[in-house]
Amino acid sequence: MDVAILGFGFLGKNLVKYLTIRWDELKRIDPNFKVTAIANSKGYIYDSNGIDLFQLSETQDLTSYSKAPFCFEQAATLIEREFFDCVFELTPTNVKNGEPGLSHIRKSLSRGMNVITANKGPLVLAYNELVSLAKTNDCLLLFEATVAGAVPVFSLVRESLQGDKVIRIQGILNGTTNYILSRMYYEGVSFDIALREAQEKGLTERDFAYDIDGIDAACKVVILANAIMGRKAVLSDVKISGIRGINEEAISLAKKSGYAIKLIGEVEKDLRVSPRLVPLSHPLCVNGTLNSVQFICDIAGEITLVGHGSGKETVSALLNDLYTTLRAQAIKS
Amino acid sequence: MDVAILGFGFLGKNLVKYLTIRWDELKRIDPNFKVTAIANSKGYIYDSNGIDLFQLSETQDLTSYSKAPFCFEQAATLIEREFFDCVFELTPTNVKNGEPGLSHIRKSLSRGMNVITANKGPLVLAYNELVSLAKTNDCLLLFEATVAGAVPVFSLVRESLQGDKVIRIQGILNGTTNYILSRMYYEGVSFDIALREAQEKGLTERDFAYDIDGIDAACKVVILANAIMGRKAVLSDVKISGIRGINEEAISLAKKSGYAIKLIGEVEKDLRVSPRLVPLSHPLCVNGTLNSVQFICDIAGEITLVGHGSGKETVSALLNDLYTTLRAQAIKS
Repeated sequence: MDVAILGFGFLGKNLVKYLTIRWDELKRIDPNFKVTAIANSKGYIYDSNGIDLFQLSETQDLTSYSKAPFCFEQAATLIEREFFDCVFELTPTNVKNGEPGLSHIRKSLSRGMNVITANKGPLVLAYNELVSLAKTNDCLLLFEATVAGAVPVFSLVRESLQGDKVIRIQGILNGTTNYILSRMYYEGVSFDIALREAQEKGLTERDFAYDIDGIDAACKVVILANAIMGRKAVLSDVKISGIRGINEEAISLAKKSGYAIKLIGEVEKDLRVSPRLVPLSHPLCVNGTLNSVQFICDIAGEITLVGHGSGKETVSALLNDLYTTLRAQAIKS
Repeated sequence: MDVAILGFGFLGKNLVKYLTIRWDELKRIDPNFKVTAIANSKGYIYDSNGIDLFQLSETQDLTSYSKAPFCFEQAATLIEREFFDCVFELTPTNVKNGEPGLSHIRKSLSRGMNVITANKGPLVLAYNELVSLAKTNDCLLLFEATVAGAVPVFSLVRESLQGDKVIRIQGILNGTTNYILSRMYYEGVSFDIALREAQEKGLTERDFAYDIDGIDAACKVVILANAIMGRKAVLSDVKISGIRGINEEAISLAKKSGYAIKLIGEVEKDLRVSPRLVPLSHPLCVNGTLNSVQFICDIAGEITLVGHGSGKETVSALLNDLYTTLRAQAIKS
């Protein structure tokens, strides 16, 4: 399997690191497994014999890679010219027009290349188009990392709840707002101070409004609704209210009655993101930067998953999608 | 696919009910899907053309089934004579000698029949023997329902954490003790009263010591250790202490510091079941009859699953195993 990695930021670098850690295992599964291209926003390195990930994992710098030249050309051009069995699309999320990820995914699927992505933008904007493109070209489009980071929501429903119908989904889908609300709850700090702490810890997106106004959570609600409930939802279908209005008084009032205030994303008849009172003893009620997702199913009842919604742990989701792709390839051949 | 159901108690009856609810879907997946035998402790009904589950689901009584005679013969004899593509082993758990389940599973696997079971006994006593028997005969042995009921622990690790190594497992693995401890915590009732409540609600096993002395949780620890961590554990490897010693004072002391007392099963270097202090804000800390299982992984970090550990919800696990078996059969053929 020839793999391309488009996007060499935090996730791309950590993916390369864990690929080296799992290298022997991956080679056992597929002796031809190799990463033949890695791209960032300036250009890419390409080697049809496979890039030395161990060297790259040390320097974390594409331009100083010694075994292949850095080519100042767009990744889009690369995936038009060369063939990859699997493309990791890890460029930054853009919910305005989805680019450059949307074009990367479209192009890859059109050429019959499997796609694994952590990029919410393209899925929020064009989920149904991309899924049918994957189907037409008989390849996989996997996106476990797009919702709740390392928490394996899509594979859980696909592989562990095969006999169930999911009736409703609710969850804490944004770690930044959960961090802020947890600090307000446990330390009694104000919203502004908690927000500043989150920014200092590097937990917020460049534009922090994207987190605290609920846009990020709403993107995940759209993906969950489309992928798990078969909807045709877009971002404007989600009724969104963020957490700017939550003050210390509201928190302490909730606390007195055994509740916490959490920013909850919901997929029911309506799609919604809003601050909600959650009993402390409820499985969804987790703290810090943790994410939680609850599936209400017709047979299993409530199944809740909790884990790290961001950070290097997200590589777990990318790797699981990669193993799934390797397995599908083995069945095909 | 020809299916046999051995054991027609609470789970067997609910399985039949949900098979009728999913009937059209199952027939779409495999037009030849049928249940050809159902056995209880007295005998069985058998029909090579398929049993009418809709009739049976109404009466819930094998002897009054009108389309095939009730045969007073052991299920063991049936599975020696007839072939089934898939055998549900749902007879009562027996951790002393595993019977009759152990013989049923051995016989089925030896004859190349896939097995799905909710029966802990055979797995606790002979996990490694049964798994290698399944391998030798190229068939599946699936047992999602044996640990934490509807909570899909084994398929989660198998399908959603493929790139991870599980380093440690801990969890609330027994709903009865969790109910008792939750009542003591939230209602301030004594251990004896909470136990009586659990008995009145039908939450305890016939021998309640099996729950409150931690034996049931220890059985699940053994299965988790063997199935997920590749150990060769037996029940006597587990250091067990139950909850008889937990009094109101201990609970209220824990409560004052923001902790609850929970009966925790652990798979680490050692295997252990013991009452532990768990912070209220910890994802494992769930209440009532809920079960929770946390996997500590080398990439994903902590992943926690919460759900119903017993009751009709467990059919979700049986059905998921059935769908997995149907899919494997489709790939083979």
